[in-house]
Amino acid sequence: MEPFYQSDICYFAEEGASLVILDQALLPAEERYVSLHTAEEVADAIRRLRVRGAPLIGVAAAMGVCVALKNAGDIESFDGICSIIEQARPTAVNLEWAVRQMRETRQKLCFDDFEFATAMLRGAAQKLQQRQKEADGYIGMYGAILLDELRTGTTHSQSGSRFPHKEETIGILTHCNAGHLATGGMGTATAPIYTAMAKGVPIRVYADETRPLLQGARLTAYELSRSGIPVTLLCDNMAASLMAQGRIDVVFVGADRIARNGDTANKVGTSNVAILAKHFGIPFYVCAPQSTFDAQCADGSAIPIEQREAGEVHSLWYRHPMAPMDVQVYNPSFDVTPHSLITAFVTEKGVITPQEICTIMS
Amino acid sequence: MEPFYQSDICYFAEEGASLVILDQALLPAEERYVSLHTAEEVADAIRRLRVRGAPLIGVAAAMGVCVALKNAGDIESFDGICSIIEQARPTAVNLEWAVRQMRETRQKLCFDDFEFATAMLRGAAQKLQQRQKEADGYIGMYGAILLDELRTGTTHSQSGSRFPHKEETIGILTHCNAGHLATGGMGTATAPIYTAMAKGVPIRVYADETRPLLQGARLTAYELSRSGIPVTLLCDNMAASLMAQGRIDVVFVGADRIARNGDTANKVGTSNVAILAKHFGIPFYVCAPQSTFDAQCADGSAIPIEQREAGEVHSLWYRHPMAPMDVQVYNPSFDVTPHSLITAFVTEKGVITPQEICTIMS
Repeated sequence: MEPFYQSDICYFAEEGASLVILDQALLPAEERYVSLHTAEEVADAIRRLRVRGAPLIGVAAAMGVCVALKNAGDIESFDGICSIIEQARPTAVNLEWAVRQMRETRQKLCFDDFEFATAMLRGAAQKLQQRQKEADGYIGMYGAILLDELRTGTTHSQSGSRFPHKEETIGILTHCNAGHLATGGMGTATAPIYTAMAKGVPIRVYADETRPLLQGARLTAYELSRSGIPVTLLCDNMAASLMAQGRIDVVFVGADRIARNGDTANKVGTSNVAILAKHFGIPFYVCAPQSTFDAQCADGSAIPIEQREAGEVHSLWYRHPMAPMDVQVYNPSFDVTPHSLITAFVTEKGVITPQEICTIMS
Repeated sequence: MEPFYQSDICYFAEEGASLVILDQALLPAEERYVSLHTAEEVADAIRRLRVRGAPLIGVAAAMGVCVALKNAGDIESFDGICSIIEQARPTAVNLEWAVRQMRETRQKLCFDDFEFATAMLRGAAQKLQQRQKEADGYIGMYGAILLDELRTGTTHSQSGSRFPHKEETIGILTHCNAGHLATGGMGTATAPIYTAMAKGVPIRVYADETRPLLQGARLTAYELSRSGIPVTLLCDNMAASLMAQGRIDVVFVGADRIARNGDTANKVGTSNVAILAKHFGIPFYVCAPQSTFDAQCADGSAIPIEQREAGEVHSLWYRHPMAPMDVQVYNPSFDVTPHSLITAFVTEKGVITPQEICTIMS
């Protein structure tokens, strides 16, 4: 089976006049690619989760700036375009980081020829995308080493191995989708999984379905099974039951923003999983590239948490009422996992503890 | 607003030839009552969760035995009817307990006149139903006292009160539906809520939606809002986020079977909530009548856990695919919360700790 993560889900077309993305809101029922042309279209696609996942939002934002600028036909539109796109969603720091990269590229331009400027910006966006994919590869390499250490009992998070036999399957829990569909590369939380699988390590992934928008069911279970990775789907409230049976050896999740002290915003429910993992003594790793670390943010209390519409919870896809339509709903899109619950971060620079974050802050 | 919990959702009709139940699988979209006549129909309604909730399953089973027997027209059918009904679902001990009550009533009959026997059995089933409703009332009374103690800081689970002002709202988290729709009375976990509300105590209930079948969204949010109780719906993975903000003061859940040592089977996800509550220092109460305590069961490992179909998770109502259809699914209907995570049990005999269970085992 061809690894699904090699497919291209975010690319330039029409000589840079359109950004083509795989519409993730339609998965798994339909694999449809759509073209975006303006800042409003890019921001709307991000808001509606047609393109999502912190790193991929960053990539799409950078590429979206280029496409919108080309179609505006005027370098003076640049700031307005950046502003519209960077405000699409508040929590994933990769969005503002990527737009900042575009602004810095723009500032470095020696002269304002429009064709030259758009070409340079497009090059910078493509480089940013390429670096993201490379970061995934390194995260996969370091994460796969962690899985090896788990089997041999040499990680700092445990003293012995529960794997007397090399052929025993490692159970990996993940939440939401921090996969190919979240980065365009091998994913962050999934990179160690794809890498270990390629090395022949026996693994089984347990994917939280991740309510309300079911990115675990619709995206993670989808991309892993399409890549031939053994995957079991569960509802978010079933993780403790699996852990109590000893079926989960390690947790890998992604991140939307990591504060200087290691507090981590990620899809809502991540902190639930972290608390369960601590209760059962299971190592909990956050996999993220440097672009997700926010040097401006002292701790989790400074991370803006997006609140989304009630309709996502009380109706399914806004069609099927699952609760009284007038009921009050609590629907934050993210939560903050305190650094004390995080065993370590798996980054493209290596595996670091929350205390070591300053070493990779740029 | 008329309290919804005063409606009758399980009763005899046609002079004992039919059992009428509110079809809970259709809620909240439709309030439809259906008539059951045979053991197979009763067992099927229990299996399909048209009638559910441990205490109500017990009531429906006892009444179902009477109806099926009357329609069979022959006292010799009694054992077969009991056997079909008691095997409908494995986890809720109230089912086997209620059928055992019917068997014991049958054994006590001095002679086998069919009309006499069915009348006596019907009387026993109605008494069982009445006792269940009374138990709810006592659970409500004891639970409301606990809420009072929480406000004044006099419970054994905490040393001070976080309620300097009497008018401050108490945040109560509940999981699944252990309400009127689960017992036919005031509910178990909801009884303290209805009671406190009637006394004018300011409360807000936070209802976990409870995947996969959404009993929290479809049933708890429904019955509480219909009764005028302030309720906020959340996805199961959002509880830690609420707790971290200090918005949850206490957890009340129901139970399907409680072992002699206090280990408690309840809707899957209950043990997740218990672990979170312990992490945040929030008292966690299990509300249940004596009929849910199983003297035959030493600890949680002896409780049979029902595994249900993959379709409940990967498709919504078997219609809308939410994941690849061939993906493996983990779908236990229940989990076991270890007694060490339970602050106390709220029963019709009073509030008891796990260590005191022997005092109410019959």
